[in-house]
Amino acid sequence: MDKTLPNRAIEWQEQTLILLDQRALPHVVEFLHITTVEQAVHAIQDMVVRGAPAIGITAAYAVVLSALTHRQAEYEDALLAINNDIALLADARPTAVNLHWALQRMQQCMLNNQHDWLNALEMEASNMHAEDIAANKQMGQYGAAFLQNNTKVMTHCNAGALATGGFGTALGVIRSAFADNKIDGVIANETRPWLQGSRLTAWELMQDNIPVELVCDSAAASTMQSQCVDWIIVGADRVAANGDVANKIGTYGLAIMARHLGKKFMVAAPTSTIDMKMESGADIEIEVRSSKELTNMGEQQLATKDVNVWNPVFDVTPADLIDVLVTEKGAIEQPNRHKIEQLMKK
Amino acid sequence: MDKTLPNRAIEWQEQTLILLDQRALPHVVEFLHITTVEQAVHAIQDMVVRGAPAIGITAAYAVVLSALTHRQAEYEDALLAINNDIALLADARPTAVNLHWALQRMQQCMLNNQHDWLNALEMEASNMHAEDIAANKQMGQYGAAFLQNNTKVMTHCNAGALATGGFGTALGVIRSAFADNKIDGVIANETRPWLQGSRLTAWELMQDNIPVELVCDSAAASTMQSQCVDWIIVGADRVAANGDVANKIGTYGLAIMARHLGKKFMVAAPTSTIDMKMESGADIEIEVRSSKELTNMGEQQLATKDVNVWNPVFDVTPADLIDVLVTEKGAIEQPNRHKIEQLMKK
Repeated sequence: MDKTLPNRAIEWQEQTLILLDQRALPHVVEFLHITTVEQAVHAIQDMVVRGAPAIGITAAYAVVLSALTHRQAEYEDALLAINNDIALLADARPTAVNLHWALQRMQQCMLNNQHDWLNALEMEASNMHAEDIAANKQMGQYGAAFLQNNTKVMTHCNAGALATGGFGTALGVIRSAFADNKIDGVIANETRPWLQGSRLTAWELMQDNIPVELVCDSAAASTMQSQCVDWIIVGADRVAANGDVANKIGTYGLAIMARHLGKKFMVAAPTSTIDMKMESGADIEIEVRSSKELTNMGEQQLATKDVNVWNPVFDVTPADLIDVLVTEKGAIEQPNRHKIEQLMKK
Repeated sequence: MDKTLPNRAIEWQEQTLILLDQRALPHVVEFLHITTVEQAVHAIQDMVVRGAPAIGITAAYAVVLSALTHRQAEYEDALLAINNDIALLADARPTAVNLHWALQRMQQCMLNNQHDWLNALEMEASNMHAEDIAANKQMGQYGAAFLQNNTKVMTHCNAGALATGGFGTALGVIRSAFADNKIDGVIANETRPWLQGSRLTAWELMQDNIPVELVCDSAAASTMQSQCVDWIIVGADRVAANGDVANKIGTYGLAIMARHLGKKFMVAAPTSTIDMKMESGADIEIEVRSSKELTNMGEQQLATKDVNVWNPVFDVTPADLIDVLVTEKGAIEQPNRHKIEQLMKK
C-alpha cells in the first residue's frame, strides 16, 4: 500500500476515520474518509467495514466524530446529542454485540469526563483500538498453543485483520501458529453470499505468504476429509452466556460436520464479543439481509427472477459443538455457562 | 415456450438433437441444434446439458448422430467408427455413470442389429429417453409415499426435468408429492459454484407453481432447523454397490447435518445410476473442474487474483447416512450391499 495511506482497515488520522472499503476488495484498495456519524452508520450497514470487533472500533470512533461536531456545546447539551448519535449507531446492525459494547464504553467515558470530554472520548476510542489488537495477539498465542505441527486449518468468512483492529481473531490464531511453523495450509471457504472468504481471507493470507486454498462452501465436508483438515477455526459475532456462538452463516453446519468427522472446532473472540445478558444463542437476534445478495452479483442477475429468498447472514452454533473458545483472557475447552462466568471474572 | 420449440431439455427432432442450453438459463431460453458427436461431447463437457440421466440420454442420441454420419458405410466399418465415437463420448465427464450405461446399451444394440442398425439405434435412444421419463414418474410415486402431509423439503443442485429425460428424480418425488398435496414448501440450495439451485431448480419449481425459497448453501443447517425441514431429497450421479452415493458437492455435508438434526435424507436415482462394479464410493472418480468456476462470474473476477482453488464438483455420501434410496424398481430404506443386490435382480 501507498505510504501515505493507512496500513490497517481502520485508522484514525487528524480527526478523521479512514476505512478501507471492504466492498471493493481485493480488486480495488480504496479508503473512505468518514467525518460524520451518518457516514459511519452507512459504512457499517453497507459493509464498508464488517467483522464484529471492527464494527465496535468503528462505532467508537464515530462517537468521537459526534463529539467533534458538538465540541462547542455545553456538556449537558453535548451529552444529549452524543447519546442520540449513539442510538443511531447502535441500530446499524443487530447481531454483533461488540457494537453495543463499544458504544456503552464510550457512553460511560462521556459520563465520567464532564470536563475535557472530547479528548477523553478520543483517547478511549484509540485505547479500544489498541486493546483490540493486543487482545488479538494474546488470543493468537493462546489459540496456537492448541495446534500441533503440520496442522491443516479450515476457516470460514473473514475473522482477520480486516474484521478487527488489526491482527485478527481466527486469522490471528492462524498467524501466530504459522509464525510457530505449525501451519501446513489453510482452507478458506468462499463464504456466500458476500464472499468474505474468496475476497478478504484469501487476500489477507496471500499478503502474509500463508498458503491458502479456496473452496466453495459446499465442499467443506469432503475437503475436511480428503485434505485431512485438523482444525476448523472461526471468529464470532456474539457469544451467549452459555457458550452458544452466533457467527457467519454456515458456521453451525461446519461445527456439525467437524464433530461428525472427528475434527476440532475452535472459536476465537475477544471477551467484548461475549454477551452475558444473552442466556443462550436462542436470544440472539440474527440479521436477515437483502435477497439481492443472493440473486445478483453487481449488476448481473444470477438467480431466477422473482424467486423468494431467505438470507440470514448469521447462525448459532450450540456450545456443545465447540471444542475450544479462545479469548484474550484465556482459552476454555468445552465452553459452558460456568466456565464462561469464571473467565469473565478474570 | 414457443410452440415450434421443444418443451423438454432434450429433444430428438428430424435427426437432430435439440438441447436446451442450461448455461444460459433462466435468463435466456435458448436451444442448441446438435448434429455431430463432437458438438455433443462439447455440450456435455461445457454443461449445456447436465445431470446424470440427461447426460446418458444425450450420449445415446449422440451415438445416433454418429450412425447417421456413417449410414452409407458397411456394417463392420460403421461399427468401428461408431465405437470410436462412443469412446470419445465416454470420456466427456467422469463421475456420472449413466453416460457409460447408455453408451454400453447403444453398443450392444449395434452388435445385435447387423441389419437396419441405424433405425435400431434411433429406436433404442428414443426408448431410453421414454423409459427415463417413465422411471422418473415411478420413482416420484415411490418416493412421495414416504412423505407425510405438510412436508417441507430441502433439495440441492438440480435433479429435475432439466437433469433427466423430463420429469426429474429428486424433483420428480417433489412433483409427485406436491400433486398429492403433501408439500408445504421447497428450500432450494443455491449450489455453488454453478448455481444449479438458483438458476435451474428455482426456475423449474416456479414454472410448476410449487412454492420454493432460495437459500445460500451455508444456510442449510440453520434453515433445516428454523424452517422445520422434514426431508432432504437429492439425486445422484453414481451409486456404488454398497449404497454410497456420489452427487453434487455439498450432498455429503447435508447428509451429515440431516442426521445430526434428525431430518430424513432421501436419494432418488434410476437403477441406471447404480454401478455394481464400484465396491464403494471410494472407487468413484470425482471430477475436479476449473478454478474459474469459483474465481469468476462471467467476465467478472470475484476472488483474489491467483488464489489456489480446489473445485471438486461431486462428493460421496456414505450409505449409512441415507434413509431411503428410491429407484424405479422400488425404494430401499437404509440401503446396503445386500438390499441393492436384491433390488437389481428385480
